[in-house]
Amino acid sequence: MHLPANDPALRSWIPVATDSDFPIQNLPFGMGSWNGEPPVPVTRIGDRVVDLSVLAEAGLLDGLGIAREAFMAPQLNDLMAGGRTAVRALRQRLSELLRHDNPSFRDNNTLREDALLPADQVTLHLPVRIGDYTDFYSSRQHAYNVGCMFRDPNNALLPNWLHLPVGYHGRASSIVVSGTPIHRPKGQYKPAPDAAPEFGPTRQLDMELEVAFITFEGNTLGQHITTAEAEEKIFGLVLFNDWSARDIQAWEYVPLGPFLGKNFGSSMSPWVVTLDALEPFRTASPVQDPPVLPYLQHSGDRHIDIALEAGIATPDGRETTICRSNFKHLYWSMAQQLAHHTVNGCNVRCGDVMASGTISGDTPDSYGSLLELTWKGTKPLTLHDGTERKFLQDGDTLVMRGHCVKDGVRIGFGEVTGKVLPAI
Amino acid sequence: MHLPANDPALRSWIPVATDSDFPIQNLPFGMGSWNGEPPVPVTRIGDRVVDLSVLAEAGLLDGLGIAREAFMAPQLNDLMAGGRTAVRALRQRLSELLRHDNPSFRDNNTLREDALLPADQVTLHLPVRIGDYTDFYSSRQHAYNVGCMFRDPNNALLPNWLHLPVGYHGRASSIVVSGTPIHRPKGQYKPAPDAAPEFGPTRQLDMELEVAFITFEGNTLGQHITTAEAEEKIFGLVLFNDWSARDIQAWEYVPLGPFLGKNFGSSMSPWVVTLDALEPFRTASPVQDPPVLPYLQHSGDRHIDIALEAGIATPDGRETTICRSNFKHLYWSMAQQLAHHTVNGCNVRCGDVMASGTISGDTPDSYGSLLELTWKGTKPLTLHDGTERKFLQDGDTLVMRGHCVKDGVRIGFGEVTGKVLPAI
Repeated sequence: MHLPANDPALRSWIPVATDSDFPIQNLPFGMGSWNGEPPVPVTRIGDRVVDLSVLAEAGLLDGLGIAREAFMAPQLNDLMAGGRTAVRALRQRLSELLRHDNPSFRDNNTLREDALLPADQVTLHLPVRIGDYTDFYSSRQHAYNVGCMFRDPNNALLPNWLHLPVGYHGRASSIVVSGTPIHRPKGQYKPAPDAAPEFGPTRQLDMELEVAFITFEGNTLGQHITTAEAEEKIFGLVLFNDWSARDIQAWEYVPLGPFLGKNFGSSMSPWVVTLDALEPFRTASPVQDPPVLPYLQHSGDRHIDIALEAGIATPDGRETTICRSNFKHLYWSMAQQLAHHTVNGCNVRCGDVMASGTISGDTPDSYGSLLELTWKGTKPLTLHDGTERKFLQDGDTLVMRGHCVKDGVRIGFGEVTGKVLPAI
Repeated sequence: MHLPANDPALRSWIPVATDSDFPIQNLPFGMGSWNGEPPVPVTRIGDRVVDLSVLAEAGLLDGLGIAREAFMAPQLNDLMAGGRTAVRALRQRLSELLRHDNPSFRDNNTLREDALLPADQVTLHLPVRIGDYTDFYSSRQHAYNVGCMFRDPNNALLPNWLHLPVGYHGRASSIVVSGTPIHRPKGQYKPAPDAAPEFGPTRQLDMELEVAFITFEGNTLGQHITTAEAEEKIFGLVLFNDWSARDIQAWEYVPLGPFLGKNFGSSMSPWVVTLDALEPFRTASPVQDPPVLPYLQHSGDRHIDIALEAGIATPDGRETTICRSNFKHLYWSMAQQLAHHTVNGCNVRCGDVMASGTISGDTPDSYGSLLELTWKGTKPLTLHDGTERKFLQDGDTLVMRGHCVKDGVRIGFGEVTGKVLPAI
């Protein structure tokens, strides 16, 4: 009766299309609202959203180490307070309630009516109250491409890159949920290398295809998290679009890093897919040469095979796929990122977001940014309607998707989308 | 009867020593606790802390546009929700309640007993729930010194420095209140330029003498704050020690900026001195040449004359002053920092912290970091006990102070201190 939540043989009494991102083996977490009510914690199966506050109120989520009030809270943070053990138990409980041969939820008409909603009637919100946001730079091909374009193909990787997962702090306030439009940012840029800086809307608006993980409470200030402990501190993953204004970034970023070229907005997919749900899709981590320092070493398959794609939809609604990449292309694992981030005693809190950096594969069609796909604008892309893109135009909608497949089970993230609006 | 809260003639029925940082003209805000109770909003006058929750409960803080519950909240954010207008009214009300000729609080024995505490019996906490933390780099002398040491004295300032207030995102989670000890961080550094990176406790632990401002709710995503509007968005100022591990920072920071070299801890003074209290100490802003772009221009005296000092106290309790600087030495004003930060639509929230960057004057004894004071360790400082410092040693306590004086009124910040503990 207690099949593990990842078992490929599991079926639900809620119908799930074969190409759905949300079978019973997924059960991601999010925040949803409808009919003008405040958001509540939800999960999703097929094209149905499940209101966890109703299940909790009915006593069906008792005994998991999560207070009932956490299922009525305005963000997932309270629900996450019990850490990975409690969330694992919650996902297992939801799996049991939703499996085809369990009548307790299936045959309770009132509960079904109160707790199940058509996904298209639900507004999704930012899943967590974000503490700090960190963006890494962990794709070797991406770092190499950028090094080739802006420095020297023979010394494209900077000296530190193979020794530590380079990262920087980003802006948490401007992280928005999928579907939120982004105004083209204004700022300073140099129209030519020897020209004086000018002010205006960016001429080089870009996307970055990333995956981010969200943390449980991690460590107190002064302590650190080892690579062996790191994954127990990870709640789940989301798709992440790190919008970038390349001309603003190029002028501002020396010596202290990206600032206004990034912090006008970052978009996050609404469903947090737990690390537990992604467990079956583990894949080998790359060999690291030179060997990394002991605090960054780990064993086992620490990477995950998640197929990623990005597309540009024009105002007519038609979309052109511009990139196909994979989360497994990263050089540095999430465990290494988290161990590095805390090795100096930096404290990680519940709801922190850590993004991968642009994920580029080793073929030109797998590069995760327009900067690389168009090679600094020298090789424009042609969209379905025959128009060209060096960078994003007003009216373009950027769409990113991600999913895993194995043993007939498909687990996905849904989408993260954002439409570019003109500068204010 | 309604003398403005800044009037030099104001006196309080609570005695205030002439060298106190906290006369009736200051009335800063903080969070205090005692006897194991939860922290509550407090102000300070002389050597007394005033419990605002007691005054609110007695109805003495009604009618200001601040809900009574805000005075029982675990951080100042709720109290700040009414913005500068409400906080200005609150400070004026407190000024009236504390002035020598107002009997309502003075002659109410119960109220006095309940609301007044000796400062040395009160534990002070982080005043606000911090959203995002930004660190600027706005002292020209500091940027010049760093450029001389690490690049070329003839091209010490980078090309963008005179055109925009360079800044970067820091880590909010590791900002701690004065008095919190800091463990020496561990990390990667290169023992010599051509050596392989090693891992261990930093050998170059430094301080940075800074002042930070804390914001009210600023702007929604996509909008911006002008230089003319900016100061209305500023709640107040604190002293800020941006601890830095120079060897870790040097190895990691290209190309994305400081990360583990900074995010192991930053220390903040506990009393937020309002911008209103600092109004009498305005001073001229520097002439900016080349002229800045229109969105960065402003008029009037946008700088503030705050004398700053830093000292190292050894375990015997004796302290050596190592630096005397001034907040007025900044090239970029707070208004310019905030206008720049939001010109791309980046949203500023209630409780965001924006620090100045190291504040160095133009004489060697006014440099705001050991990096500059010892010129990269080549000119060690000698302390009172005859020992030398290139960088900080375990057991050292770093102490920073700041105050303004004019027309016989002294308004200060108290201290921000932090003791260096050995690496864990």
